[in-house]
Amino acid sequence: MTAVRIREVGPRDGLQNEATPIPTETKLAFIRALMDSGLPEIEVTSFVSPKWVPQLADAAELVPQLPPELRAWVLVPNAKGLERARAVGAYRIAVLTAASSAFTERNLNMTRDEATATALSLLAERGPNDAQRVYVSTVFDCPYAGRVPLADVLATVRAVAASSADEISLGDTIGTATPGDVRELAQALLREGIAPQRIWWHFHDTRGTALANVYEALHVSSDWAGFDSSAAGLGGCPYAPGAAGNLATEDLVYALERDGMATGVNLDRLARASEPILAQLLRTGPGSTGSGRASSRVQRAILAAER
Amino acid sequence: MTAVRIREVGPRDGLQNEATPIPTETKLAFIRALMDSGLPEIEVTSFVSPKWVPQLADAAELVPQLPPELRAWVLVPNAKGLERARAVGAYRIAVLTAASSAFTERNLNMTRDEATATALSLLAERGPNDAQRVYVSTVFDCPYAGRVPLADVLATVRAVAASSADEISLGDTIGTATPGDVRELAQALLREGIAPQRIWWHFHDTRGTALANVYEALHVSSDWAGFDSSAAGLGGCPYAPGAAGNLATEDLVYALERDGMATGVNLDRLARASEPILAQLLRTGPGSTGSGRASSRVQRAILAAER
Repeated sequence: MTAVRIREVGPRDGLQNEATPIPTETKLAFIRALMDSGLPEIEVTSFVSPKWVPQLADAAELVPQLPPELRAWVLVPNAKGLERARAVGAYRIAVLTAASSAFTERNLNMTRDEATATALSLLAERGPNDAQRVYVSTVFDCPYAGRVPLADVLATVRAVAASSADEISLGDTIGTATPGDVRELAQALLREGIAPQRIWWHFHDTRGTALANVYEALHVSSDWAGFDSSAAGLGGCPYAPGAAGNLATEDLVYALERDGMATGVNLDRLARASEPILAQLLRTGPGSTGSGRASSRVQRAILAAER
Repeated sequence: MTAVRIREVGPRDGLQNEATPIPTETKLAFIRALMDSGLPEIEVTSFVSPKWVPQLADAAELVPQLPPELRAWVLVPNAKGLERARAVGAYRIAVLTAASSAFTERNLNMTRDEATATALSLLAERGPNDAQRVYVSTVFDCPYAGRVPLADVLATVRAVAASSADEISLGDTIGTATPGDVRELAQALLREGIAPQRIWWHFHDTRGTALANVYEALHVSSDWAGFDSSAAGLGGCPYAPGAAGNLATEDLVYALERDGMATGVNLDRLARASEPILAQLLRTGPGSTGSGRASSRVQRAILAAER
């Protein structure tokens, strides 16, 4: 029986693209409900500039109100963000780079190697209780440059693996990856000698492939049993409006539990955890149907059954 | 490079639960467009009683108007349906049974063995050009009895395999199956000595597991490379309103092609094939969002990008 780890990213990755403002209190209730469903580790917010992402402007208010027993992660995009995160005591820190230079140039105005160096520099001062994660985006396709060569992905992952980062989260940023892609990358990582325990997979379900990708990764090696997912499939890709976003935590938990891989998550509680957020987002009406909204089929089935 | 076979079931399985009446001409255009996208075999309708399924009441008008080069399949639920199908020259015939007695008793007022015998009796008179398929529903879970014991599934499949049927389509009727379930059944079928070439897998995507199930089946053996799917994910399960229905053909083709398994299908043409049907179904308004409507994420992404 394999034990898998799930990193719930809904409160950060799920909400960051949502235009409807969600009150801090609703977010806190969401996070608490997720925790109560059995998710011990949650990425709760990003200390990104409020000008870029108004939805997460309350990061510094939110973090001090979190239950102390939660292993809360925060994303920091730059030195300013790190400073703000440190100021409120956050110490599980995630930073961002990408395997595609076209992506980092467009989004960060840096080459891939510059972006990676900048991200890793944020991890240089490590406190005794700190935990560190590096997101490597576009490990399969780039929205600006198409297929990202495996050599580019491995070069980036190698640089990250040489750092103090505990975790490397590999992102299928636009949700194009298929099991064959995952197999190729997973086998290459094994050949590279990257410790599987440091690898997390971050799949998007835009084309319905996310869960197939999870299982393919497990087929190559069950030693990397870390997957990012988002409650109710919240979140999406700004490049594909209307497309489903992150792998839904409900779908992941449902399948893994049924196949005997313990997650520790109560599926009923989990499905209810995002109801208040979904209600808030859906209240904006049919004219503003957005990315990833209520995209968990489990969620939709439950909600429909209640009507 | 594995060649896979896809049976498009959208015009039958996809439309049968839709309340909005679709004109015969729209269905014909849909079928032609699906064929033109590269799908050579399509299940086009069911000769079910018009009282049960008004949507398919036009079966006898539709079949004679189909392009002769299409390998068109029809479903027949009983002797009366077979008679109607024969009268208009249909000769690729699919019949229905289930692995769960609770299911056949509730839906057909027969035990499982009676239902299987009845279904097979419809295949007794086989014309020289005939092709035959037997759907075995509820091979994983039954909506009335829960888990269906593997022994019951194998007993049913064994009886069907002993008949003249060319194809046995195994249905995850309520979309609960996960890759572990598929592996167990697939391995059991291999042990039974059932020729993999006769087996087709019919997955529903209600919980996001359909494509993962496809890949798991291929992991056990690439010799059964037959999958049922429905354009735009049309169709659903009447027992889970609001839930996604059949595995979307777009999702299946996208993944298989990207992974080097030729399908012969042009994905762009395929995605456009169901647009007129989707438009018609969506025109019924947000108050009647139904099962499986526009549930292909590929489809939604394309439609959203065009807006």
